[in-house]
Amino acid sequence: MAAIGQHGNFNQQGPADEQHSSDPLSPAESDQWMQGFPPSQGKLIRFADLPDLKYPAHRWLYSHWRELVPTTAVWRGHQASAALPEALADLDDFAFDDPSGGRCTLAQALELSATDGLLILQDGKVLFERYAGELRPERQHRCFSVTKSFVGLMATQLIHKGGLDPEASVISHLPELSASGWSNAKVRQVLDMVLNLAFDENYENPESDAAKARLANGSLPRPAGYRGPTSICEYLQSVKAGGPHDQGFSYITPNTNVLAWILQRVTGKPLATLLSEMIWQKIGAEQDGYFSIDELGMADAGGGLCVTLRDLTRFGEMIRNGGRAQGQQVIDPAVVADICRGADRDKFRHAGYTMFDGWSYHNQWWISHDRHDAIRALGIYGQQLYIAPKAALVIARFGSQRVAVDERIEKLLMSAFEALAAAAREGDLH
Amino acid sequence: MAAIGQHGNFNQQGPADEQHSSDPLSPAESDQWMQGFPPSQGKLIRFADLPDLKYPAHRWLYSHWRELVPTTAVWRGHQASAALPEALADLDDFAFDDPSGGRCTLAQALELSATDGLLILQDGKVLFERYAGELRPERQHRCFSVTKSFVGLMATQLIHKGGLDPEASVISHLPELSASGWSNAKVRQVLDMVLNLAFDENYENPESDAAKARLANGSLPRPAGYRGPTSICEYLQSVKAGGPHDQGFSYITPNTNVLAWILQRVTGKPLATLLSEMIWQKIGAEQDGYFSIDELGMADAGGGLCVTLRDLTRFGEMIRNGGRAQGQQVIDPAVVADICRGADRDKFRHAGYTMFDGWSYHNQWWISHDRHDAIRALGIYGQQLYIAPKAALVIARFGSQRVAVDERIEKLLMSAFEALAAAAREGDLH
Repeated sequence: MAAIGQHGNFNQQGPADEQHSSDPLSPAESDQWMQGFPPSQGKLIRFADLPDLKYPAHRWLYSHWRELVPTTAVWRGHQASAALPEALADLDDFAFDDPSGGRCTLAQALELSATDGLLILQDGKVLFERYAGELRPERQHRCFSVTKSFVGLMATQLIHKGGLDPEASVISHLPELSASGWSNAKVRQVLDMVLNLAFDENYENPESDAAKARLANGSLPRPAGYRGPTSICEYLQSVKAGGPHDQGFSYITPNTNVLAWILQRVTGKPLATLLSEMIWQKIGAEQDGYFSIDELGMADAGGGLCVTLRDLTRFGEMIRNGGRAQGQQVIDPAVVADICRGADRDKFRHAGYTMFDGWSYHNQWWISHDRHDAIRALGIYGQQLYIAPKAALVIARFGSQRVAVDERIEKLLMSAFEALAAAAREGDLH
Repeated sequence: MAAIGQHGNFNQQGPADEQHSSDPLSPAESDQWMQGFPPSQGKLIRFADLPDLKYPAHRWLYSHWRELVPTTAVWRGHQASAALPEALADLDDFAFDDPSGGRCTLAQALELSATDGLLILQDGKVLFERYAGELRPERQHRCFSVTKSFVGLMATQLIHKGGLDPEASVISHLPELSASGWSNAKVRQVLDMVLNLAFDENYENPESDAAKARLANGSLPRPAGYRGPTSICEYLQSVKAGGPHDQGFSYITPNTNVLAWILQRVTGKPLATLLSEMIWQKIGAEQDGYFSIDELGMADAGGGLCVTLRDLTRFGEMIRNGGRAQGQQVIDPAVVADICRGADRDKFRHAGYTMFDGWSYHNQWWISHDRHDAIRALGIYGQQLYIAPKAALVIARFGSQRVAVDERIEKLLMSAFEALAAAAREGDLH
C-alpha cells in the first residue's frame, strides 16, 4: 500500500494543477499506447521513459510490465485450470453511499477509478467480471504490493510447518544485514512491519528512498554515472534503523524484500519457484504468473508480481476456503486463521491511517476487523484483493489510477466492496 | 543458422587455445550458474556481462533468456495441451557412423554436443526425451534462428490466403526502407534470402554487423556513449545493398526482421499475437512461448523466440501432418507442400555451404532434398527442428555448444538424425 505511510502522509496526491485524479478518461487518453509497427513517437513507452511517464500512459504499462523488464515465470504446473463457474448478476447499477457524498453506482465507481479489471466472486461463482484499458482475461497485471501478501502467506505457512522460527533474528539467516536496520530485528517483526527503519516510503518523490530502492532493483532506469546499489540485496544493506523497533506499525517495503530473502535462503529456492510449488500449481491457475527481477535474478518481492485477474481471484478464493482449493489443502487452515486474526490494533494506529480506522496489519495482510471479517491485500495504483469470509465474497481489482495512493478512490472502492458484502449477506446481489 | 554464411565462412570456431568445442562438460562446468541468494560473484550472469560471457555459462542463459531481457508472451490459449503419447525406445546405444570417423552412440553424441534437450517423435509418439543443463520440460529455451522458420511459415500462409503478394515490393509495405538495401527487393526474395546485402553475418566477432544488430535490438548491452540505432526498425534502415540481388542464396538475418515487419504492418498485429493466433493456440501447446523484444516492443524475429522442447516438437508434428493438429487444419497443406518443395538448389550452392550439399533454402526453411524428404529449422548454438516425413520422424533439439556454428557437431547430429530416419523407415527403432 505504502506511501500512505510511516508518518501518516496519506493525503499524497499529484500536483495541484493536474486534472483531478478521479475524472474519467476518454478511450483516446487511456488506450492506443504502443500501437503500430513501430509505435508512433507520442504513444511510445520505453523503459528509459519511466521517470517521466505521465498518467494515463501507465494504463498500458501495468498490463505489459514484462515488455519492459526482465522477469521470471511462476509456473502454473500441469493441472487443468480450476473452473470459475458463472452466476452473473447485473451489478452495473448496484448503488452505494459515496463517502464524498451522494450515491454512486458500481459502473460509475469503475469509471471514476481507472479500473483495469474487477472480478467479484460469491460462493465461488462469478457475479461480475469486467476488463478495461489494456487488461485482458489472459494477461497478467502488475500487483504492486499485493505481492507482499503472497510472500507473507508463504512465510506464515513455512513457520507453521516448522521451517522457519518467527523468533529467530533476521541476521541469523542473513548475516549480510548485520550493519543494517535489521541487525536487531526478529522475523516476526519483519512479517508484521513493526520495525523502525529510516526509509521514506513515498512513490511520487523521485528523491525518496522508495525511488532509490527502484533504481537498485531495476524497475527504474539509472541516470548516467549512477553509483548506488545495483541489486535488492545490496540496497537492503544500506537501510538503517530510524529509532527503537516494535513501537508500532510502519509500512516499509524493504521488510518484504528481507522476508523473501530469508525464505529463499532457508528453502534454497527462488521466490518464483516457491510460489509455483506452494500455491500456483495447486489452485488451478489459468496462466503462469511472473515476477520482475533485479540484475542478480532476485524477485521484486515488494511489488513485482504480475498475475491475471482470474488467477488473483482463485488465490483469494483459496484463502476464503480456509486454504483449500482443487480438493486439497494448499495452505494450512491454521495459517489462514492466524492471518485473519490480525495483529495489535493499537500498534497499527501508530501509523496514522485514519482511512483504516480499527484495522491491523499481520503477516503482510491488511485486516479490517470489520463486521464481514474482511481482509485485504493492497497495492499502489489501486491493486487489491478483498476477502470477506462472512459474505462468502472475494473481489479482485486491478487499476492504474493517476497517483500511487488516492484517498478518494480508496474510500470509494472500500465503500463499494463493503456494500457489496452487506448485500451479499442479505442475498441481494441477484 | 548464420555465421556459416554468406561468404562460405562456415569453419568459424572459438580461439585456437580453447578447449575443443566438443569436449564433454563436467556438471560443475555446465551447471551451478545463478545459484544462491544472491548468486556468488563467479557464477553470476547479468545482462551487462553478455559480451564477455564464456562457455559454458550460456548453458544457463539459453534456458533463462527472459530473466535478462524484456519479453512478450506467445499465449497458448484456452486449449488443453495436446497429448504426446509415449512409445519409449532405448536409444542411448543407438549407433551411427560418426563423420569424423568410427561409430558413435546417441548418448555419446548428446554429451559431445552440449545438448540441453532432445525429443524424438515417431508417428506422433515419443521415442526419446532427454533434458540436460538448465532445461526442463516446462522451460522455454531460446530458439535462435529456428525463429525464422516460424516467421516464414506464417508469411507463406498469409500469402496463400491472399493477404500478402509475394511479388509486391518491400517498400510498398515499408516505405521506411526506401533508402536501404531492400529498396528494390520483392517479398519473395526476402522469404528465400536471395538478396545481396552488405551485412556480415558473423556471431563471434564483436565488431560484425550481426553484433551491431544485437546492440540495436537490445540483446546485447550498449557501450557507454553508444550512438547507433536503438531499435530493429531503425537498424534495418541502415543496411545497404552489397551488389545486385537474386544472384544466389545469402543468409542474412535482417531479411527475417523485414519479413516480420511486413507481416505486422499488413495484419496490424504484433508478431507474438500472430504466432499465438495462427499456430500456438491451435497445436495444443503446453506452455506459452515468448519473444525477446526491442525497446519499441518489436519482437526479435530473427532469433528471439523461446519455446519448450515439447512444444517445438508439437509444432514440427503439425508440419509433418501437412499442417493438421488437434483435428483441424492449422496451416494449409499447400503451404507445407510449397515449403517442402524447396527452392533453386543452384542458387543455394552460391552460398558455399559444402556441409549442406544439394540443399536449398525456401521460405525460411532449410530443405535437404534427401531420401527422407527432410526439412529443417536451424539456429546457432545447436538449435534445430528436423522433420523427415518419409520416416514419420520429428526431432527437436536444443543446445548450448561452445561456438555459434560448430561444423563437427552439426555433422555429427545430422548423421545421427539421418541414421535415425533410416532406422525408423526400417522399423528398427524399437
